[in-house]
Amino acid sequence: MSARIIDGKGAAAALRAKVAVEVAGYRAATGRAPGLAVVLVGEDPASAVYVRSKGKATLEAGMLSFEHKLPAEISEGKLIDLINELNSDPAVDGILVQLPLPDHIDPNQVILAIDPDKDVDGFHPINAGRLAIGLTGFTPCTPLGCLKLLKAELGDLSGKNAVVIGRSNIVGKPMAMLLLAEHCTVTIAHSRTRDLPEVVRAADIVVAAVGRAGMVKGDWLKPGATVIDVGINRVAGEGGNSHLAGDVDFASASQIAGAITPVPGGVGPMTIACLIRNTLVSAARRDGFELPEDL
Amino acid sequence: MSARIIDGKGAAAALRAKVAVEVAGYRAATGRAPGLAVVLVGEDPASAVYVRSKGKATLEAGMLSFEHKLPAEISEGKLIDLINELNSDPAVDGILVQLPLPDHIDPNQVILAIDPDKDVDGFHPINAGRLAIGLTGFTPCTPLGCLKLLKAELGDLSGKNAVVIGRSNIVGKPMAMLLLAEHCTVTIAHSRTRDLPEVVRAADIVVAAVGRAGMVKGDWLKPGATVIDVGINRVAGEGGNSHLAGDVDFASASQIAGAITPVPGGVGPMTIACLIRNTLVSAARRDGFELPEDL
Repeated sequence: MSARIIDGKGAAAALRAKVAVEVAGYRAATGRAPGLAVVLVGEDPASAVYVRSKGKATLEAGMLSFEHKLPAEISEGKLIDLINELNSDPAVDGILVQLPLPDHIDPNQVILAIDPDKDVDGFHPINAGRLAIGLTGFTPCTPLGCLKLLKAELGDLSGKNAVVIGRSNIVGKPMAMLLLAEHCTVTIAHSRTRDLPEVVRAADIVVAAVGRAGMVKGDWLKPGATVIDVGINRVAGEGGNSHLAGDVDFASASQIAGAITPVPGGVGPMTIACLIRNTLVSAARRDGFELPEDL
Repeated sequence: MSARIIDGKGAAAALRAKVAVEVAGYRAATGRAPGLAVVLVGEDPASAVYVRSKGKATLEAGMLSFEHKLPAEISEGKLIDLINELNSDPAVDGILVQLPLPDHIDPNQVILAIDPDKDVDGFHPINAGRLAIGLTGFTPCTPLGCLKLLKAELGDLSGKNAVVIGRSNIVGKPMAMLLLAEHCTVTIAHSRTRDLPEVVRAADIVVAAVGRAGMVKGDWLKPGATVIDVGINRVAGEGGNSHLAGDVDFASASQIAGAITPVPGGVGPMTIACLIRNTLVSAARRDGFELPEDL
């Protein structure tokens, strides 16, 4: 059996195009463009790449991008001062602080400072709580992107056995809450799980978000399972080269799975598309502008 | 095999006694007693019984109990006015609004009005989020009580397979988050779960919180499993009598389980003990009074 490859890149482009259409409508209706403020502290090259991609996608969707680059030595207090300014700036609908932050800054304090109604990353505890309880809020972009891929692939998820491997606040836990809201039977597995292959074998849906290249093997999978690979691991190759690999061993898994996301080109592009989507949603909520329910 | 009966009544009495000792220390240190405000709207007889038990337990622990009984016709706005008063009353460390509320009042709006740092029921979305993320907050009393029984019975829960049946905001979801924080592999099952007996059979720990008398049968259980029965269902008996029954079929389950909570006398008493505990914790946090870590 050879799995269908889930085209995250295509799905992300389609979502971004859909957002752009809605942004145009929003601008026509309100006379202003949604704005996303991205805050980057320090010089981490990977973070700089992410921030650039986010800014580019924001502009391409017809929204405004406000980039704030701060020196690594900035104090937590000064960073929070900036966030407070962004909180009260009516041109800013979404605020994203690129993680990780330098060691002397407590990311929890920074996240708590963001107005929950501009928290398009969905990392504020009140948004984690709203997601758990089923209230309107913001869902973290990566699990939201995974869910969109799953629903596009499978349609109704009700009653399916889903296993989420990894229990981070950014992916694993919100992913579990989203799948539960879709009426899946949800198992959250992690590094302390005994006999992980056996747990995975029971799953119709596997979401792997552990950060270990190739950990999930093909023979762990139930034949026909849908596999979403969140991992983006840089693996050393021959001659000093390196390549990106997911948490799933693609070669073996794609022989057993019914459908699988590739790395790169799977979940990654969906994350940024969902960020753009969340920013538009924030703007629309503030202005009472109606968006399609399935956006 | 005949299961050990987990004595929730005894565990609750022990916890309440431990809280009372700490309350005495707190009073000596601060010159004041922790206070719990309980708000009852309308005349629901079951609610009245719960409120009376909570008030009694509060007083017995050496704390102050403030009962507010409001007519069923009270407006949402007036109820929220009262909550705002309690939020700013320094004598009040915990605020509990007895649910259910009359239909014309939105419980979400009422819960949102409670100061999260006095929300000893742990129902405010920010406390749900804190629990999910792993920040300090308040955990709903029933799942906290279940966890205490499990840890007393099993010690370290790390790596155990736990199945929570039921996904309510008050029990199922916070229970799953607590078990995950204890490093269990956690499965959340519910009414849409396919082949529930098979899911339950994989579990070392079963928490049943569905509200259907006797639903979980003995032959669903892995031999030796620990079973926590959250259900309190009133079942009609012969001659117009009725009795309380849990969600687990005790007669068959107690032949297979390693340990099981009875109904009544299992989880129920722990809920009130944990409410008293949470109220003391709230007071202690406000005054910087140190409590034993395992309280």
